[in-house]
Amino acid sequence: MDKLLYGSAYYDEYMPTDRITTDTEMMRSAGHNVVRIAESTWSTLEPQPGVFDFSHVDRAIDAMEAAGISVIVGTPTYAVPTWLVASHPDVLAETRAGTPHYGARQIMDIAHPAYRFHAERVIRELMKHTAQRKGVIGFQIDNETKHHGTVSAPVQRAFVRHLREEFDDDLDALNRAFGLDYWSNRVDAWEDFPDVRATINGSLGAAFDRFRRGLVEDFLAWQAGIVREYARDDQFVTQNFDFDWGPGWSYGVQPAVDHFSAARTVDIAGVDIYHPTQSRLTGAEIAFGGDMMRSVKDGANYLVLETQAQGQLGWLPYPGQLRLQAYSHLASGADGVMYWHWHSIHHSFETYWKGVLSHDLEPNPVYEESAVVGREWEKHSDALLHLRKRNRVAIMVSNEALTALTWFTLETGFIDGAFGSSRGYNDVVRWLYDALFALNVEVDFVHAEGGRLDDYDLIFTPALYSAPESTLERLREYVADGGHLVSTFRTAVANEHLEVWHDRAPHLLTDVFGATYNQFSTPDGAGVTHDGSTTPAEIVLELLTPLDAETLASYDHPAWDRYAAVTRNPFGKGEATYLGTKLSDEATRSVLTDALRRAGAWSWPQELAGTVTVRQGTNGRGRPLVYLLNYSPDDVVVAAPLDGTSVLDGRAVSAGDELGIRPWDLVVLEG
Amino acid sequence: MDKLLYGSAYYDEYMPTDRITTDTEMMRSAGHNVVRIAESTWSTLEPQPGVFDFSHVDRAIDAMEAAGISVIVGTPTYAVPTWLVASHPDVLAETRAGTPHYGARQIMDIAHPAYRFHAERVIRELMKHTAQRKGVIGFQIDNETKHHGTVSAPVQRAFVRHLREEFDDDLDALNRAFGLDYWSNRVDAWEDFPDVRATINGSLGAAFDRFRRGLVEDFLAWQAGIVREYARDDQFVTQNFDFDWGPGWSYGVQPAVDHFSAARTVDIAGVDIYHPTQSRLTGAEIAFGGDMMRSVKDGANYLVLETQAQGQLGWLPYPGQLRLQAYSHLASGADGVMYWHWHSIHHSFETYWKGVLSHDLEPNPVYEESAVVGREWEKHSDALLHLRKRNRVAIMVSNEALTALTWFTLETGFIDGAFGSSRGYNDVVRWLYDALFALNVEVDFVHAEGGRLDDYDLIFTPALYSAPESTLERLREYVADGGHLVSTFRTAVANEHLEVWHDRAPHLLTDVFGATYNQFSTPDGAGVTHDGSTTPAEIVLELLTPLDAETLASYDHPAWDRYAAVTRNPFGKGEATYLGTKLSDEATRSVLTDALRRAGAWSWPQELAGTVTVRQGTNGRGRPLVYLLNYSPDDVVVAAPLDGTSVLDGRAVSAGDELGIRPWDLVVLEG
Amino acid sequence: MDKLLYGSAYYDEYMPTDRITTDTEMMRSAGHNVVRIAESTWSTLEPQPGVFDFSHVDRAIDAMEAAGISVIVGTPTYAVPTWLVASHPDVLAETRAGTPHYGARQIMDIAHPAYRFHAERVIRELMKHTAQRKGVIGFQIDNETKHHGTVSAPVQRAFVRHLREEFDDDLDALNRAFGLDYWSNRVDAWEDFPDVRATINGSLGAAFDRFRRGLVEDFLAWQAGIVREYARDDQFVTQNFDFDWGPGWSYGVQPAVDHFSAARTVDIAGVDIYHPTQSRLTGAEIAFGGDMMRSVKDGANYLVLETQAQGQLGWLPYPGQLRLQAYSHLASGADGVMYWHWHSIHHSFETYWKGVLSHDLEPNPVYEESAVVGREWEKHSDALLHLRKRNRVAIMVSNEALTALTWFTLETGFIDGAFGSSRGYNDVVRWLYDALFALNVEVDFVHAEGGRLDDYDLIFTPALYSAPESTLERLREYVADGGHLVSTFRTAVANEHLEVWHDRAPHLLTDVFGATYNQFSTPDGAGVTHDGSTTPAEIVLELLTPLDAETLASYDHPAWDRYAAVTRNPFGKGEATYLGTKLSDEATRSVLTDALRRAGAWSWPQELAGTVTVRQGTNGRGRPLVYLLNYSPDDVVVAAPLDGTSVLDGRAVSAGDELGIRPWDLVVLEG
Repeated sequence: MDKLLYGSAYYDEYMPTDRITTDTEMMRSAGHNVVRIAESTWSTLEPQPGVFDFSHVDRAIDAMEAAGISVIVGTPTYAVPTWLVASHPDVLAETRAGTPHYGARQIMDIAHPAYRFHAERVIRELMKHTAQRKGVIGFQIDNETKHHGTVSAPVQRAFVRHLREEFDDDLDALNRAFGLDYWSNRVDAWEDFPDVRATINGSLGAAFDRFRRGLVEDFLAWQAGIVREYARDDQFVTQNFDFDWGPGWSYGVQPAVDHFSAARTVDIAGVDIYHPTQSRLTGAEIAFGGDMMRSVKDGANYLVLETQAQGQLGWLPYPGQLRLQAYSHLASGADGVMYWHWHSIHHSFETYWKGVLSHDLEPNPVYEESAVVGREWEKHSDALLHLRKRNRVAIMVSNEALTALTWFTLETGFIDGAFGSSRGYNDVVRWLYDALFALNVEVDFVHAEGGRLDDYDLIFTPALYSAPESTLERLREYVADGGHLVSTFRTAVANEHLEVWHDRAPHLLTDVFGATYNQFSTPDGAGVTHDGSTTPAEIVLELLTPLDAETLASYDHPAWDRYAAVTRNPFGKGEATYLGTKLSDEATRSVLTDALRRAGAWSWPQELAGTVTVRQGTNGRGRPLVYLLNYSPDDVVVAAPLDGTSVLDGRAVSAGDELGIRPWDLVVLEG
Repeated sequence: MDKLLYGSAYYDEYMPTDRITTDTEMMRSAGHNVVRIAESTWSTLEPQPGVFDFSHVDRAIDAMEAAGISVIVGTPTYAVPTWLVASHPDVLAETRAGTPHYGARQIMDIAHPAYRFHAERVIRELMKHTAQRKGVIGFQIDNETKHHGTVSAPVQRAFVRHLREEFDDDLDALNRAFGLDYWSNRVDAWEDFPDVRATINGSLGAAFDRFRRGLVEDFLAWQAGIVREYARDDQFVTQNFDFDWGPGWSYGVQPAVDHFSAARTVDIAGVDIYHPTQSRLTGAEIAFGGDMMRSVKDGANYLVLETQAQGQLGWLPYPGQLRLQAYSHLASGADGVMYWHWHSIHHSFETYWKGVLSHDLEPNPVYEESAVVGREWEKHSDALLHLRKRNRVAIMVSNEALTALTWFTLETGFIDGAFGSSRGYNDVVRWLYDALFALNVEVDFVHAEGGRLDDYDLIFTPALYSAPESTLERLREYVADGGHLVSTFRTAVANEHLEVWHDRAPHLLTDVFGATYNQFSTPDGAGVTHDGSTTPAEIVLELLTPLDAETLASYDHPAWDRYAAVTRNPFGKGEATYLGTKLSDEATRSVLTDALRRAGAWSWPQELAGTVTVRQGTNGRGRPLVYLLNYSPDDVVVAAPLDGTSVLDGRAVSAGDELGIRPWDLVVLEG
Repeated sequence: MDKLLYGSAYYDEYMPTDRITTDTEMMRSAGHNVVRIAESTWSTLEPQPGVFDFSHVDRAIDAMEAAGISVIVGTPTYAVPTWLVASHPDVLAETRAGTPHYGARQIMDIAHPAYRFHAERVIRELMKHTAQRKGVIGFQIDNETKHHGTVSAPVQRAFVRHLREEFDDDLDALNRAFGLDYWSNRVDAWEDFPDVRATINGSLGAAFDRFRRGLVEDFLAWQAGIVREYARDDQFVTQNFDFDWGPGWSYGVQPAVDHFSAARTVDIAGVDIYHPTQSRLTGAEIAFGGDMMRSVKDGANYLVLETQAQGQLGWLPYPGQLRLQAYSHLASGADGVMYWHWHSIHHSFETYWKGVLSHDLEPNPVYEESAVVGREWEKHSDALLHLRKRNRVAIMVSNEALTALTWFTLETGFIDGAFGSSRGYNDVVRWLYDALFALNVEVDFVHAEGGRLDDYDLIFTPALYSAPESTLERLREYVADGGHLVSTFRTAVANEHLEVWHDRAPHLLTDVFGATYNQFSTPDGAGVTHDGSTTPAEIVLELLTPLDAETLASYDHPAWDRYAAVTRNPFGKGEATYLGTKLSDEATRSVLTDALRRAGAWSWPQELAGTVTVRQGTNGRGRPLVYLLNYSPDDVVVAAPLDGTSVLDGRAVSAGDELGIRPWDLVVLEG
């Protein structure tokens, strides 16, 4: 792509009147240059089995081509038509909650042959029909694909076949690896293999979850293969990845998909990022999603395929926020931003997930603000396109640790929900990410199994509960070779089968951290004393005993005051810090500042932390590009960090010049 | 009826000993003159299929006739006997929660042929046996009839037939009207019609709910038809309607029954009204229930077939409250009050829903207080009977809007429960009703489809989210012709299929209100500034832009302070006020006071607001009757509002005389 | 047994490495002398049907015998193997929540013939294999046995057969006794008997619960019978009883088992007691469990078969607490304490229910502290063994009243959960127990049907809602003969079928208490005035009218101030106090102190209340033994209550000597 993409999802199917010409004119006048179509419209594309109707697709592509607007065509497979379920009721995935009835999207078993058969036919027809259209620049396969919680019988049988292979048909090995002797769960004949949906064995349950993440990868690869039989070389294939929705919006590692593995299937990563606005707009979620999408494709630029225009009722942006958000995506490395969706829908589930246009389909403040963005991007595309980053700091993430901590939760040690709920893996990830974001530290994510570590000065492992021994060995070497490692509580506890290591904790790393523990508990009112001030400990207390490490913080508690809470230890050429509990924001900032400085990862953006948010990189024409983003309702003033040009107003700027930034506004400097 | 009815439900079936003579003596000495019997006693009436046993019914009617106590006979069909379920398990209604097991009442599919067959037989036998009894003054068909959430297959098939008829077999029209293209929900062959229980399409879901409300009307009409084959001309047919139980008691429009349509079936409306007492007794629930029951039969008097004596554990009335409550029902237009029930039951589910007598079956404070009421009513029946009202103010209500706002909730825009719960339609109704009640404004309710509007000076539409265009046209004409209209947020949003209008909001009424909006959000801390004081906005903020209207209140919020919160606009000969958000009690009172004054609906009862509750009308002998009700633990003094007689103590009163009213006491003045 | 038993559960099956010799050495050096093995290991014992593998059992017994450590062998039946469920899926108990899937323990129908068949075979094989081993001192049958909520069809049919027998085939009698006429629940033909799982009839529901408690007794008697065919005369049979888990730990009468009846099956009672530690360690739960276990076997000593070492994450003991807990068990009459379990498990559900050893299997603070205990017990076994008590105070408990109050809850009067949850029977029991514990009053428990009353000076009946009339007659005689009775609200309300008595309340006891009531309600802000001070009333207000009784406390409430809250009445040679509401801790202490003094049950331990916890009795060599237990983080000093020896340090002590006790420490004095 040679320009920034800006636009929205467009559904001619859902329009109450024939107004596509009005819409394309409104888009053009607002500088929109792309639409995404067809995703989830299977029932209009194929109203009856084998009967195809491309009229809406044709109308949309015709109108967009006429208006010079590019089109991304989505395969429609993430919502199944009524006739498919009427003929094959068992395409609906059985889940732990039971058998669903027809209605919502994402309720089918993505491995079911009847679903696959019909999905393949409609994809092939759609591709034949659209691949040669000039206006079509790429294809999105399915949407926000997951395994939808399937526990359908054929999936369970496939899982057992998978285990037979993994364990080379050796049931003893499997029983041992998973600890199935406990509570008489042992399996001594493959034909006795029990339904796994109610298992209380975390090793088995997590293996099943991992297997189901594999189903997603298989499915995407299969769809991509079909699409590529028809796509031109200049057309891309993408997927719309999304994240943990735990806080009520996109923030956190996706539990049901390993994005690193799944991203191999696509040419360019696509993502949807939904986040709070109004007084709760901080930029953290946008940055997180962007950092992850870059990381899963080795730093390549990505497309924001969906983000909110007006969004949910509480997300209506204040004046300025829509524009600030759009730039925030670019500042993380996006090459395009598309809203979900052009017009608010007049019916059904997402009537109040509002688009650029309200239900009256007339211009409104959000549309007007998007037009400002569109016109700016038309003008400054060259400066803003293809931002590349070279980050010094990385966070190691793991779907496996995430899953493990739903079976052995941080606060109770039991299955999530069995004795109340608990904060989970992503709460720890978000804690560190928020702290780093607040310090203007840009990060990459690295995969626990196979990510490159040498690129980074400083690596964090939030609650890396379970990992194969090889990962721990690589972390060990990383520090020995001069890297700086910061690990939190519940790191290096268990192996890849969730068997807790039976030697000193943290396994293989006690000398790296120069500390160990053999008891841990819940906070029970404990504080952490660091640098003379005491703030509360949260989630869990690992009672650390330094071996060689320096104690950076201790517990403030009548029974546990002999134990360390945070330790630091030189190891080889590097250094390793261990956090035995969740610290307060204040203490976290202090410990992280220290770690960043000692790792040589402290620079001028950190000095601006608290004033503006800084993101930077090198743009497509090879020049340094700096974003100064004001996520606040107040005017701020900062000194320009470099000589260059203020991109959006063309002003020349010298390092040290005072730059005033209005509420929810920004400055982009090109060096 | 020529006298006030006062009594209770009586179950000889449940009595631990033979004491019916003691009971009738206790009733007579307490001035009780009516009992309600037989409802829900199917299994004693017909212990085996086709085997009938009328001994309890006979005993009760014999004893009551002997004591001169009238009898209302209830058909027993709202609880099914064991033998019916043993033979026909599928008479139990399948619901969204699954298939119930036997046990509770109200768990059958009221359209099921096996249920209907057996219900008809027992009703006919009961009618043959009782219709000619002198003491029997009327019949109650079934009890608190609802559709019980049925999603049984035959009901779903009937629903599809109903849709075929409604849409004249035109699936395209149905797909378009319901917006089924969304998420591939389109139906292109009737045989593909999906199970609706998990639909995410609010249009389809609401149509199914409306269809099921129709089942209730069909069922009641069918029962009434059978009963009338036997009943004498001097015997009435009634039903025991009840209300939304959302707050934990009766208050709000009944979601599962359209009372206006259903009431056509009966000769006299019956109702059950349960409400808090003790420190939480305000009279609002009693007034609400009474206003609704009058309204559904065009102002006719009604019977309170059930209300609490001791009721639930937390409802034991303070001294004075039982009597105050009884008069409160008359003050709303009731011609009779019956307790559920005479004696506390010694077994099963409602052991602690206590009656007039406690489990010891001896006189107690509640019985003694009911005797005071009974004796007063014997004495003053002529003055108190047949109160008629001529109210100037009405509230327009709609089952359809209520249902719609469960699919598109006020606070989230999504299906209730999908993203947490939300205040609903009845919360808005109760907000306005409470405010009007606090101002001593008596209201009627009018049906959104067909209610007479011209009778009123002032009409409120709380959250009339969806309505056919004809309703909006009638509101438009009402204002043009001189009416005063007060509408709240979320009025005139969608048509009868829950399709949001795709032109300017509020549809068809922007010139009536002289205001419009194209964005709205959640409060996010916003205030409303009205008359110089600022109080919090609640539930939703519609960001109103006045076209011609006067701004009565604005938002106090950094981003939205340019928008109006409340507007008023002259239109034709009338005036229309629009409330874009839920106001504080204080601001509501202020805005409503203004609207009432401008509509000429302000009078002396409003001046007494805050001191006593006033209800009034014209009694059966054509004289003005005024109730001054003291719902408080304090003595109050008011000036008599008219010349006349204090009914209960016979004192002559001149307008302006000081009347002292004791805690939880009242004065009734006849002009 | 001639020595204190001290040890843990040991699972060679779950060990990650071969280290049994290391373990036995660690045990011996810590003074551990017993292990409990094999419970719940069915799938390793019998990996395929009829194929047995005793290698783990043999290894364990061999090693323990070699080390001189005794072994208790558990039958493995409380968790079913995969092959059993694969062949007979219906051995899994259907419950009100539906049909479970395989996974957890305790999910089978303990009456199912296929389960019984296979359970019997494995028990017999295990007994043949182990009964003659020298090191095996006893057998535990099953574990924490319950009915697991079964509503499986065969169990329901057995229940109906049971009712036919109980009611001598007389359906009328059953309908009358249960009040089935209500809501048409009458059954007039046995073949119509409905599925009981959704019954709303508390009498029927409670009868089913009682029947299911009978299943547990049958099952245990059956297992004990099989085991005794093989066991030597010097080997005991025990069961591991447990308690209500309502507060999140063991405290309260077990709802699903009648411990008094079930205990007849075993030679020595075993128990598991889990409780909070850290800042919430009070000793109350340990004392409660111990008092109950002594009481169910008429004062005999018992074994703590399971209690926590490190336990759950929040239970990691502070230094000193593990030792204090161990002695607390002995102070209640235990002859042994076993931890669950020796080593923390590296897999599955209870990975974080931690044992003596952490996952690293090395010595740690908990292990070291257990070694202190072990060595002390080796030394002082003779002084500490076989403590017998002669308590003056008893609490009457009833599974039937407990169950009844789930059908008619204290705060709502409805089925628990139907209108929110409510405090239940055990909350009342715990309230009284806590108050007595705080006063250093040691109690026995007596069964409502058949417990000996004459042994006691003072008997409490907490919320004895339902009981056969004979129980009330016995209480009446008890007071008449000089006993002191303290009953709380909701005592003597209903008969054994949960039919509320239809005469004056409390039934049969109004003259005993000299008081009655016919109305009651919820607190609604009421206070209780006692001895001039007013504190809040809780749960329920029974509005008491004294007949002859003295009013000890009255309600402070505008409407109810004429009623008594607490009364006392002489009756015959005794005295009866009635508490119409739950009092504050302060008022409770005051009323109880008075009652204890008047009953002559006040002695020196009560004077030490608030300083140390006192438990006492007579040890195995016939000498008085007094425990002074300091459950606090502070040093305390008390005067020695008798001449004797301080057992643990051998010091001679004279009555009146000052004894200093460290935080979480204790002194044991032998007289």
